[in-house]
Amino acid sequence: MAESKISRRQFVSSAARLAAVASFPAKPLLASASAATASTTADPARLDDPGWKDQGIENLAKSPHAKLRDIPVRAVTIESGFWGRRREINVTKSIPSMHDLLEANGRMNNFRRLTGKSDGQQIGPVFSDSDVYKWTEAVGFALQSGDRPGLRATAEKLIDEVIAVQEPNGYLNTYYQDDRKSLRMLAQTQTTGHELYNMGHMLQGAIAYYRATGDRKLLDAGIRFIDDFLLPNYGPAPKKPIVSGHPEIELALIELYRITGNKRQLELAGYILEGDKRIELPETRTIYMFSGTPFTARTKMQGHAVRAMYACCGATDYFLETGDDAYWKTLNLLWNDMTSRKMYVTGGVGSRAEGEAFGDAYELPNFRAYGESCAAIGNMMWNWRMLAATGDAKFTDVIERALYNGINSGMSLDGTMYCYRNPLAFDPSSGEKIRNPWYDVTCCPPNLERTFASLPGYFYSASEDGIYVHLYDNSRLDWHLENGTGLKIVQTTNYPWDGGIAIAISAARPSEFTLHLRIPGWCDHAEVALNGENIAGVTPGRYLPIRRNWSGGEIVRMKLEMTPQVLQANPRVADDTGRVAVQRGPLVYCLEGLDQPDGVALNDVALPLRSQPDTDFTTEFRSDLLEGIVVLHHPGFVAEAGESERFLYSPYEGRPRKTRPVPLTFIPYYAWSNRMTTAMQVWTPVLTS
Amino acid sequence: MAESKISRRQFVSSAARLAAVASFPAKPLLASASAATASTTADPARLDDPGWKDQGIENLAKSPHAKLRDIPVRAVTIESGFWGRRREINVTKSIPSMHDLLEANGRMNNFRRLTGKSDGQQIGPVFSDSDVYKWTEAVGFALQSGDRPGLRATAEKLIDEVIAVQEPNGYLNTYYQDDRKSLRMLAQTQTTGHELYNMGHMLQGAIAYYRATGDRKLLDAGIRFIDDFLLPNYGPAPKKPIVSGHPEIELALIELYRITGNKRQLELAGYILEGDKRIELPETRTIYMFSGTPFTARTKMQGHAVRAMYACCGATDYFLETGDDAYWKTLNLLWNDMTSRKMYVTGGVGSRAEGEAFGDAYELPNFRAYGESCAAIGNMMWNWRMLAATGDAKFTDVIERALYNGINSGMSLDGTMYCYRNPLAFDPSSGEKIRNPWYDVTCCPPNLERTFASLPGYFYSASEDGIYVHLYDNSRLDWHLENGTGLKIVQTTNYPWDGGIAIAISAARPSEFTLHLRIPGWCDHAEVALNGENIAGVTPGRYLPIRRNWSGGEIVRMKLEMTPQVLQANPRVADDTGRVAVQRGPLVYCLEGLDQPDGVALNDVALPLRSQPDTDFTTEFRSDLLEGIVVLHHPGFVAEAGESERFLYSPYEGRPRKTRPVPLTFIPYYAWSNRMTTAMQVWTPVLTS
Repeated sequence: MAESKISRRQFVSSAARLAAVASFPAKPLLASASAATASTTADPARLDDPGWKDQGIENLAKSPHAKLRDIPVRAVTIESGFWGRRREINVTKSIPSMHDLLEANGRMNNFRRLTGKSDGQQIGPVFSDSDVYKWTEAVGFALQSGDRPGLRATAEKLIDEVIAVQEPNGYLNTYYQDDRKSLRMLAQTQTTGHELYNMGHMLQGAIAYYRATGDRKLLDAGIRFIDDFLLPNYGPAPKKPIVSGHPEIELALIELYRITGNKRQLELAGYILEGDKRIELPETRTIYMFSGTPFTARTKMQGHAVRAMYACCGATDYFLETGDDAYWKTLNLLWNDMTSRKMYVTGGVGSRAEGEAFGDAYELPNFRAYGESCAAIGNMMWNWRMLAATGDAKFTDVIERALYNGINSGMSLDGTMYCYRNPLAFDPSSGEKIRNPWYDVTCCPPNLERTFASLPGYFYSASEDGIYVHLYDNSRLDWHLENGTGLKIVQTTNYPWDGGIAIAISAARPSEFTLHLRIPGWCDHAEVALNGENIAGVTPGRYLPIRRNWSGGEIVRMKLEMTPQVLQANPRVADDTGRVAVQRGPLVYCLEGLDQPDGVALNDVALPLRSQPDTDFTTEFRSDLLEGIVVLHHPGFVAEAGESERFLYSPYEGRPRKTRPVPLTFIPYYAWSNRMTTAMQVWTPVLTS
Repeated sequence: MAESKISRRQFVSSAARLAAVASFPAKPLLASASAATASTTADPARLDDPGWKDQGIENLAKSPHAKLRDIPVRAVTIESGFWGRRREINVTKSIPSMHDLLEANGRMNNFRRLTGKSDGQQIGPVFSDSDVYKWTEAVGFALQSGDRPGLRATAEKLIDEVIAVQEPNGYLNTYYQDDRKSLRMLAQTQTTGHELYNMGHMLQGAIAYYRATGDRKLLDAGIRFIDDFLLPNYGPAPKKPIVSGHPEIELALIELYRITGNKRQLELAGYILEGDKRIELPETRTIYMFSGTPFTARTKMQGHAVRAMYACCGATDYFLETGDDAYWKTLNLLWNDMTSRKMYVTGGVGSRAEGEAFGDAYELPNFRAYGESCAAIGNMMWNWRMLAATGDAKFTDVIERALYNGINSGMSLDGTMYCYRNPLAFDPSSGEKIRNPWYDVTCCPPNLERTFASLPGYFYSASEDGIYVHLYDNSRLDWHLENGTGLKIVQTTNYPWDGGIAIAISAARPSEFTLHLRIPGWCDHAEVALNGENIAGVTPGRYLPIRRNWSGGEIVRMKLEMTPQVLQANPRVADDTGRVAVQRGPLVYCLEGLDQPDGVALNDVALPLRSQPDTDFTTEFRSDLLEGIVVLHHPGFVAEAGESERFLYSPYEGRPRKTRPVPLTFIPYYAWSNRMTTAMQVWTPVLTS
């Protein structure tokens, strides 16, 4: 019994599953924009294809090695509930206020000064343009969920100002201008200058905006950069070499290829993932950059975490298009290394502040955890791609874990303050401000905004045999099966506060297909009933396939057990020795100092566990607290006053020190640091008795 | 019973003890060298005073607020035994090979190029001159223990080459030459340029060499820098301001004052410790530098650890001369903060690599511990001064802890490899090389060399009422009481491997005085017998005062219980939760991977403790291992093969995972990493059953 529980909740690799190899290349949807350099496999007849409306976060419609295909963001409406609130604040407060901050911090002036509309110097780091592009992507995804005229007008103006800077040869970057013009695309610049990183984000922003509006203006500018500037001049010898100093262009190139069908864009991504030996780099640099050497030669997760995650996204995209077995083997090796040795229980990755990097195996400090918001987002994006390749729920478990915890913690509940790093313990005496409205390296805030804006696109996938349900919240799907049969799905739930979910399925006409229902891996026990009758074979950590002739009007009811769970870490995680974490449903919980009785210091607290599974938790929905959360109560112990101050080292006593009972109150980790600066910890020492 | 044990072994503050205020200033021993700027309180008649022979590590002979006074290094001969071996290697291998490395790395060429004897550019960082000076200090201390003609000749040549560079105005620094001449002593340069730091080490080297040889050449050059260049031009307005970018000059100025009696040197140290408001610095900088703001305004130990330790040394020296109560209060506040919240069990300090700094309270990571060798040395130097002010054994406990563990680990057993950082856990897969023959920032190696060379000076102190015995090893003291009565003390022991020590006391004539015998704080039980009769009042963590009329030929026998001890850390030390450390006598022990059975990974190991105090240890002296050590054996458990690889997070089980018994072998921490690169850990998870 205990054994089977472990196998359900573990984050462990299974054998690599290679998707079936299919034909190549994919049929293009849209021609490249540039006539001058047109040498593509694109189909000109697709120029006016209205497919932009039907494309999801990724357009996998023609990807030969995708088992699952994205559904458009607009096909899913997230209604009032957990994510509804977050998304409404995102679009009404976060995205507009970030635009004001980009303006106030000169990010748009960098463009204007080049068209004579403003003076002053270039402001901000080399990757400042990407802040603008990520914001554009956030707007693009927001508009995919419905028009927001003010937002669209603001974006239109911004896009016009961006495009005005593009040079006739296609080059577009506000940093490598004037004196720095001569540095463009030099090996050293590519290594540190983020030119292609910026362009990758420009393409992602352009694509999201195109998929929202059908407006090709920014997209065409991106295509000009790729087709006119990059492809003719850079690539394998005799062209000039490329190194991806900060991976991002790879996944953008492949998504662009999925629109244009221009195979050279895909090939360029593959060339960049392979690295070009003509640019020689020290090993420390290629580790840090997670690029510059063949992706398929990597054997462990290391280096700068965001770079690593984006590289893995690009490599998975490359696999989805090519089925290259070496890529698939490497991707699974890296995934296993990360999820079994280098990921926080929050789904955050990149534990080491130095180099914003993955640490050694099991190096997962709590106070000094880095866990950059962008890295958790990258983790979700990568797992989304791995899920598309396989339909394996182990990837969805990571998506959900990162989304609800290590990503969700990154934005304050009011939508105006952001975490760059997401520690798992915090001591306010450090003086550190964890949430800030702006960072000069402001990658995380717009990254969080684009993620929440894109969220409807993560709820479902289409497959040859039916439809996959990945995430649960009050929502409506209005889409169709791959055979064209209309399909509506309405989810009614109080998830993640409650494990009950009602799912109403209405096919436009009676139709046989499989509904793949995700049973979360965190779940100890789950029940699924169709029209009141229990279905067998419900296994946490798997998709439950329900195949039948759906006649319309079926109701599937799920009951996911949400007993609070106590987790231990692998004993090799030195920072978690003798400690436990608390989770309920998909939410990791934490203690915040201000919720505990007066005078109780968090670092003096221990959690007594009388039985396993522990039954001493009580749950309470607090509508007045942190926009409505379930808090958990559990008896605890705290060291007597003065006890902790006395000794630094003393003889081992083999029993608890002088303690007194104290009631402990846990809140969801994502909600921490939304009231006042106070101590916080996810991992609490355990007292066995 | 348990309570009293705790109070004996703890590292805890007691109330501050203010030494009695005495007259000021001290009587000088030696005039300043500079006639041109002579404006001192020095006594010219002392010019030929042979006092150099009688001066200890510090010359506290006239320090009004010193309760204890140093005994010359030459008065103590450390014979064959634990430190005898280390010191012989230090003087025959470490010091000579470091000279060769200083040459090979251009440190001496920096001097020669300025006198036209060599060409080339300045090599190494701004503080490169200090490497040469610390080496000179090591030689000085070595020569205090007896002449080494070859070493002295080498040092003479080096000193001549140093002095040749001194400018007529007294300035001496090889870095601020040529283009950088204009930067000398600018506020910015003082903050980062280490000019006065270099000079501080020059003075320390000069003083040690003078005390060995009576040779004033280098000392006079140092006095010229201070008296001709610094004092006339820098100091309180209207002179130009000083900021101590890296404290060191303070303690050197005060030691110089103790030789010259030039009160202005002491006053300048006080001015520097106070900081000069005319140089405005951001708070982050004054925290990092542990200088630039009034020393007496500090409330916690923070910033760069070596800077903090040297600043505390200087401030204690200032107190020893002035009795300034504000200094004493601050020193005790800082000492309590450090020893109760910020010190490793090895006596290492400065846990954070970022900024080589003290961390927050209880921030004591093991794998990523910084624990710079220089900081542990600074800790010992500071406690030596606090001990002089008080005679309180709590300071000696820290000295012994740092010396035997966090300092001793810094030099390989063969004397040619050095640690910069001294972690308390190590994973060889990190690829890090912990011991290296040379660092471009090579502060630690010569610092270790000067420390081991000076060691005899730490064994005893003189007091008004008799003599203090601080450290134990086979050794001979040949000195006198403060009243002039000759005194010889011979220690015969196998310490630290065995707790039995025979101390033969021979006063030149029958004489009443107090023998203050240190009973180490780590000791659970100690017995002291005089001529076979047990003495009452033996209290670990205190000096045992034995007052009597010593007639000559008395033998004191000590028995210090050396049962292996299991230590726990304050529960607030998050990195040590659920873990214990092992100590025997003054030695902290560790596990090294290569000593455990094949296939046992250290991070899978746990230590079962059936009883407290634990009785499952067996000890074994291994003469063949690591130059002869006592190893400790204890039964342990190791996770079954594959167990640790399987889960990153899983349900809390409340019981050990699948384990099998395994014998564990501990070695002294100082001896780690002397055979091959292998895993190491000081803190091991405990299994209670």
